[in-house]
Amino acid sequence: MTETSAHSALYRKHILGVDQFDPELLAEIFPLSVSMLERVDRHDPTLRDILAGYLLIVFFYEASTRTSCSHEAAMKRLGGEVIVRENIQFSSVSKGETLEDTIRTFAQYGDIIALRHYDVGSVERASKVCDVPIINAGDGTGEHPTQALLDVFTIRSEMKNIESLKVVFVGDLKHGRTVHSLSRLIASRYGTRIGCYAPESLRMSNELRAELGRQTIVEEYETFEQAIAEADVLYVTRIQQERMPQVEYDRVKGMYILTPELMQHAKERMIVMHPFPRKGEIDSRVDLDPRAAYFRQAKNGLAVRMALLKLVLAG
Amino acid sequence: MTETSAHSALYRKHILGVDQFDPELLAEIFPLSVSMLERVDRHDPTLRDILAGYLLIVFFYEASTRTSCSHEAAMKRLGGEVIVRENIQFSSVSKGETLEDTIRTFAQYGDIIALRHYDVGSVERASKVCDVPIINAGDGTGEHPTQALLDVFTIRSEMKNIESLKVVFVGDLKHGRTVHSLSRLIASRYGTRIGCYAPESLRMSNELRAELGRQTIVEEYETFEQAIAEADVLYVTRIQQERMPQVEYDRVKGMYILTPELMQHAKERMIVMHPFPRKGEIDSRVDLDPRAAYFRQAKNGLAVRMALLKLVLAG
Amino acid sequence: MTETSAHSALYRKHILGVDQFDPELLAEIFPLSVSMLERVDRHDPTLRDILAGYLLIVFFYEASTRTSCSHEAAMKRLGGEVIVRENIQFSSVSKGETLEDTIRTFAQYGDIIALRHYDVGSVERASKVCDVPIINAGDGTGEHPTQALLDVFTIRSEMKNIESLKVVFVGDLKHGRTVHSLSRLIASRYGTRIGCYAPESLRMSNELRAELGRQTIVEEYETFEQAIAEADVLYVTRIQQERMPQVEYDRVKGMYILTPELMQHAKERMIVMHPFPRKGEIDSRVDLDPRAAYFRQAKNGLAVRMALLKLVLAG
Repeated sequence: MTETSAHSALYRKHILGVDQFDPELLAEIFPLSVSMLERVDRHDPTLRDILAGYLLIVFFYEASTRTSCSHEAAMKRLGGEVIVRENIQFSSVSKGETLEDTIRTFAQYGDIIALRHYDVGSVERASKVCDVPIINAGDGTGEHPTQALLDVFTIRSEMKNIESLKVVFVGDLKHGRTVHSLSRLIASRYGTRIGCYAPESLRMSNELRAELGRQTIVEEYETFEQAIAEADVLYVTRIQQERMPQVEYDRVKGMYILTPELMQHAKERMIVMHPFPRKGEIDSRVDLDPRAAYFRQAKNGLAVRMALLKLVLAG
Repeated sequence: MTETSAHSALYRKHILGVDQFDPELLAEIFPLSVSMLERVDRHDPTLRDILAGYLLIVFFYEASTRTSCSHEAAMKRLGGEVIVRENIQFSSVSKGETLEDTIRTFAQYGDIIALRHYDVGSVERASKVCDVPIINAGDGTGEHPTQALLDVFTIRSEMKNIESLKVVFVGDLKHGRTVHSLSRLIASRYGTRIGCYAPESLRMSNELRAELGRQTIVEEYETFEQAIAEADVLYVTRIQQERMPQVEYDRVKGMYILTPELMQHAKERMIVMHPFPRKGEIDSRVDLDPRAAYFRQAKNGLAVRMALLKLVLAG
Repeated sequence: MTETSAHSALYRKHILGVDQFDPELLAEIFPLSVSMLERVDRHDPTLRDILAGYLLIVFFYEASTRTSCSHEAAMKRLGGEVIVRENIQFSSVSKGETLEDTIRTFAQYGDIIALRHYDVGSVERASKVCDVPIINAGDGTGEHPTQALLDVFTIRSEMKNIESLKVVFVGDLKHGRTVHSLSRLIASRYGTRIGCYAPESLRMSNELRAELGRQTIVEEYETFEQAIAEADVLYVTRIQQERMPQVEYDRVKGMYILTPELMQHAKERMIVMHPFPRKGEIDSRVDLDPRAAYFRQAKNGLAVRMALLKLVLAG
């Protein structure tokens, strides 16, 4: 590891939640992510020296192919090895065994664990008994810090100055873990203005609104056109049919579908994001619009996770 | 990549169907496959330099352990990295997400995708939106080009001159994707004579017969003994019970089982092939016969896939 | 492979059962395991040269995440590549195909196979047709030689002189494959004294008692306190509720739970082992006791498997 002399503040630390990403750390992670992306694109062979000999265990109690593949690819791009086990909830290790026992055992095999679990707080609980660093890859409705980080990185890469932007969230603002983590991170760290456009029953909770309101201006929009028009970043999320009364779903269905026609209301310089998978919220014709940033967003996930793995394992 | 100066015609191309394998390409793939086999067998350490730093994503919407392992082993033998996800049809990514969205996302993580899907034409559809090369690893009853290629390579390696041979297909000639691809490839490229021995209800379709008949001689045999006796290559396939009337199955059962006794009718210099798995069509005592080529056929699959990965990724 | 000049007796051999581990072989495996552990802990980069270019296929007909990950990690720590397929019993390869056909096919792709199967004797059967070495990773109630080996290695590492110790087995001594393999190995190779503490219906079989009795002293204890007090190694196993009459389970439940209070009866220099997963047999407060060796036991599994892979593949 000749790349850094002094160690990062993340060195040998767990990554549990967005709160631990202070401005100094973000200032370390983001330029490194840019560099990772650039080195991947030109197939830099020295990239593989960075984590050669290190072993990541991707341990998912529920399947999330996107997130697990992104971690796996990040580690492999850096020359590291990866062991993946998904759907652990159906396997022998979870039968009657405590999460703590499982994690302490698997920590014997590798150098770092990326853990996803369906219970809020479970990853933090596991980290308390774990000899190696743990990355929280999502714990139920709790935290998913690397997702929030890749979202901020995407905004930063595409729009540069986060502080002066307005980020408008559309869709399910009540349950979405992504919306919670990201809005809290940008409001607290950058004072970014927040906009909201959601069906009555899926509005942001009063608690979250109040927390954000102490740090920035939070606006609500009455029409999709207005939300689109004012957004520097339009962050679209999925409305899950089972999460609202059928009568309301039938009413709102179609009021949240982004089309090329609606994109004519948008600023010339803005981006559309989506954590994916999408299910009709964004018409596939929008993909051709250069402002559609959601596939670049996936690639940024790779870059940010490469940066994090490097900082935690190699300093 | 110091191995070739000019790039292959396959460089950065999708592999979608057998039609794209013209004589020039076959003349490039087969000698390279021979060399791959030889280098694997002597554990040549320079093999691992060929695709070091490249990442293959094996993405199977239905499990096919044999095919996925063969791709995975091929990439790893060349020093490349592999991400494997099978049974995607049950996972989160397929829930309501289009194949196009899934593929565009995963293309962000790797350098090439080996895709298997249960729908005819789906792999070609995916290739249209995919930034990285896609290898069709089977799309329903559609194409499975690498299987056809390894079959031709096996015939070529074992029997040398394909043009003057008679390849006799036995079993289910109606539904078998393998039979369709291989017979079309050898008839069109080499004019190889084709023989058929199948139950009434599983005969080759008139369309395929007509297509083959424009390029070569197609014969049908009345007895298994005759089929065996005339074959330079006896290509046995499985008769699936559910694909024919029970009364016919009961009648034909046993008329298609290759035994050491029946092998006495075969030429001294000929080979028996089978795409596997077999289910009783070939008595396991035949395995000891040097003319049984079906396990060598599996190894050839490794060699051909190594050659293809090398040509697509490194030119 | 410059590490050894003469080849090990294990070179290119199958690992099928504990009987093949004679004193000379154990004298080769254990020091190598110690060295592996030490090199893993200091991230020795030359470790990755030992099996670079070799490919292990981990082929499990039933899932055992712990055992499969341990093999996978061992191979990757040595620079080798790994293909993992678990739950093969649900996959296409097992549909109607014989184990022999499957193994002969997959042997074409790799250099060594770690095979787990639910049928006693199946791994030995597979080894007869397999061109590459097979490691038995558990065949039903049959053998699980690497588990027995890691247990002996743990005793040896923690307590040094195995010959003079008393190893006390607690719990289900009737069905546990682990208990059978380990007790036979230590009795026959080291003459280690054996103690037993088990419910009436889960006592060691007369056959095993007689076999052990020919080689060493076997004692039975009436109370858990006595078993604990006399043990140099207390080997705790799980009592499976379904394996004894409900009325007896209700009676014995709680008579086999190791607590910090009970540990006060134990010698100052002794260790507690458990093959894991545990389900309440050992109170988690015991984890803090330095005599609790069960997590170190998991790490020793990694070390022993690294040693075995090295000896089989590289001599």
